Amino acid sequence: MSTLHDFLHKGSFSSLQARLLEMNPVDLARELEQMERGEMLMVFRLMPKDLAAAVFTYLDSSLHQHIVESITAHEIRELIDEMFIDDAVDLLEELPSNMVRAIINNTSPSTRSLINAFLKYPENSAGSLMTVEFVGLYEDMSCKDALELIRHSGVDKETIYTCYVTDKSRHLTGAVSLRRILLSDNDCLISEIMHSSVISVHTSEDQEEVAKKFQLYDLLAMPVVDKEGRIVGIITIDDIVDVIEAENTEDMEIMAALHPSENEYMKTGVWELSRNRIVWLTILMISATFTGMIISHYGEMLQQVVVLAAFIPMLMDTAGNCGSQAATLIIRGMAVGEIHLKDWLKIVWKELRVGCLVGLALAALNFARLQIFADNNLMIDLCVTITLFMTVLLAKTIGCILPIIAKSCKLDPALMASPLITTIVDALSLLIYFAVAQTLL
Amino acid sequence: MSTLHDFLHKGSFSSLQARLLEMNPVDLARELEQMERGEMLMVFRLMPKDLAAAVFTYLDSSLHQHIVESITAHEIRELIDEMFIDDAVDLLEELPSNMVRAIINNTSPSTRSLINAFLKYPENSAGSLMTVEFVGLYEDMSCKDALELIRHSGVDKETIYTCYVTDKSRHLTGAVSLRRILLSDNDCLISEIMHSSVISVHTSEDQEEVAKKFQLYDLLAMPVVDKEGRIVGIITIDDIVDVIEAENTEDMEIMAALHPSENEYMKTGVWELSRNRIVWLTILMISATFTGMIISHYGEMLQQVVVLAAFIPMLMDTAGNCGSQAATLIIRGMAVGEIHLKDWLKIVWKELRVGCLVGLALAALNFARLQIFADNNLMIDLCVTITLFMTVLLAKTIGCILPIIAKSCKLDPALMASPLITTIVDALSLLIYFAVAQTLL
Repeated sequence: MSTLHDFLHKGSFSSLQARLLEMNPVDLARELEQMERGEMLMVFRLMPKDLAAAVFTYLDSSLHQHIVESITAHEIRELIDEMFIDDAVDLLEELPSNMVRAIINNTSPSTRSLINAFLKYPENSAGSLMTVEFVGLYEDMSCKDALELIRHSGVDKETIYTCYVTDKSRHLTGAVSLRRILLSDNDCLISEIMHSSVISVHTSEDQEEVAKKFQLYDLLAMPVVDKEGRIVGIITIDDIVDVIEAENTEDMEIMAALHPSENEYMKTGVWELSRNRIVWLTILMISATFTGMIISHYGEMLQQVVVLAAFIPMLMDTAGNCGSQAATLIIRGMAVGEIHLKDWLKIVWKELRVGCLVGLALAALNFARLQIFADNNLMIDLCVTITLFMTVLLAKTIGCILPIIAKSCKLDPALMASPLITTIVDALSLLIYFAVAQTLL
Repeated sequence: MSTLHDFLHKGSFSSLQARLLEMNPVDLARELEQMERGEMLMVFRLMPKDLAAAVFTYLDSSLHQHIVESITAHEIRELIDEMFIDDAVDLLEELPSNMVRAIINNTSPSTRSLINAFLKYPENSAGSLMTVEFVGLYEDMSCKDALELIRHSGVDKETIYTCYVTDKSRHLTGAVSLRRILLSDNDCLISEIMHSSVISVHTSEDQEEVAKKFQLYDLLAMPVVDKEGRIVGIITIDDIVDVIEAENTEDMEIMAALHPSENEYMKTGVWELSRNRIVWLTILMISATFTGMIISHYGEMLQQVVVLAAFIPMLMDTAGNCGSQAATLIIRGMAVGEIHLKDWLKIVWKELRVGCLVGLALAALNFARLQIFADNNLMIDLCVTITLFMTVLLAKTIGCILPIIAKSCKLDPALMASPLITTIVDALSLLIYFAVAQTLL
């Protein structure tokens, strides 16, 4: 906005600083991104340390590199020390390795060892999502002591609203909300008010599973434990919202025959975009030649009754659409946990009935249309209509079965979405079409 | 689990009650769903009121009706009064209207008027998502007074971690986290520590917009205000996570040519499933007959060079896949806010380049394959290869432009996904194919 720019040019730094303190870090980051780089750096340096760290995490990654290159080693240290460990680790993962070394050498020893530990967790695991800034209490503390501890240590903690309780050797034994502590008597022991059945995850658990647990139990934060059951960190819901969106994007990309990518479209180069598309396109193009072979095989019949060719697109498209409708419902149902493998028989039975209904309706409509608007041989109209019905039924069944098979083979069901199913049911629909035509004509 | 069942049959109710208190309400709800209905009801009645209300909200909706029918009017009143208002309203929206009347007549007058007010907000608006259980503070309170107020009123509040500050006529003027209050001096005034730039939404705002704001600003809760800027409720992030998943499901369904439905697949009847599919299938089936007309138009040529027909499936499938790849990336990018309308020229330019690269690669591969494995006339191979390149280029361009056009006409870009684009590019690819064939052969 012009205001920051104006303050800067008038040299009224105190009004600028007051304005900065009023603004939300997210909006501030967006305004900085619009500014000229030199100005941006000046405004960035005018912010208090904690605000600078907050704004920094919301800045675009291209600016991260610019800022890290432009500020002093001492400023980098302050910035990293002020950031939450998970944000700092995210930053380091996106910077070039020489810069990472420079930063790690400049942070305080305690932060450095934490960052190093975090960088070891595999990508997309619970360990890579977590932060170590949580409040740990002991079972034998009183509520008053607990509140004192929170007051004194809370400033640095990412969330103080759920506190985790451990025994003396840091094994997780319970959890208690700040709300519960506040509403209890001062002398009450933490062990008396804590919940002992805490939902937790292991450091190596996949982030998709973690997100499912968050949704199932409506949690705001969840503790992460190591193999021995000792608490090593927590995951907070704001990071989980991002995981959910990323997993949904991945599913949609796979369902559209794209190699999934974590990069934003606008920031991805033409080469990478092309690479992500070409593998599946090649596989599907080659598979489609089998469909072509079926046509070649029946070339003689097609030459005699060339009008048959005119119905190929309609049959192929309808088959593909029917298959992808069924597949999408099943894939999505499994992704959000509404559909389970054990239901497979019920699903197939349901799709068979839906296929019958939809197939009958489409076939009847199509037959009427052909009778009214086209003046083909009745046998040809019948042949198209029968094929349409059988194709819809088959497409619905295959569309629901393939994702189930993929899931039971521990493959991602999204792989079985529209493009692959379209290719398969295209071939089958043409086989049926020519077989029916050969019988009737 | 058998334990609850065992306790019940041994008549050891106190051990059963102790076990109930230990368990997580979500797990408890899932176990109740597995039990025989009479037993389920007995266990349900053994729970303390607050636990019963929590478990009830997690139960399957078919059990809601059963329980409401089986318990006394007094028990219903206790249950509803104990539930958060937003959960109670959700319950009422799913029950038959005679039951809703019975329940509303049985609740306390204050709950009743609240429920009635909530039932008036349009579905999927911020108003329908919000709850009235929040902590409201005044600007001139001290931190000590604020903490006292939270301690005394907090039990019934859905979240006390962000408190909202109003002036005397309930206009929202700021927000302050419980953390901030706890960490400040007792005598500090709320107006000194509150943030005055609060992100809020209006009651009539669409839930998708609300979810975007939550994600943009990493919020845990957000206040909802009326036209005069007075705070009427808050929305909490656990409800937003559900909104995000529902909106993603809706997008995927629309992208697969399904009429979006909020009901779970396993609980939706065959009639409804068929109805949700048939409208789009009919539209697409009829559109595909235009593609058939193109083939009919070139029937004579096809009769002479029948081998041309064998390449139709490959050309159509590749065109459809290319178009849907581009469309999916653009639709998703717009949904998560990474792609904006103003970027349209950049997007088209990017897709043109990607289309060139991908088209060249596929065309070259295809030409080589035809030269090696098939012994057609060279002109036919050339004709297929040229068409393939032009089709890919065209499909990528159309695939990215249509969602942009939809968005700028305030339509849902997801409408422009694979099935519709497939139908359009199918027709275009055949037009190109036959035009090229006529020129070369």
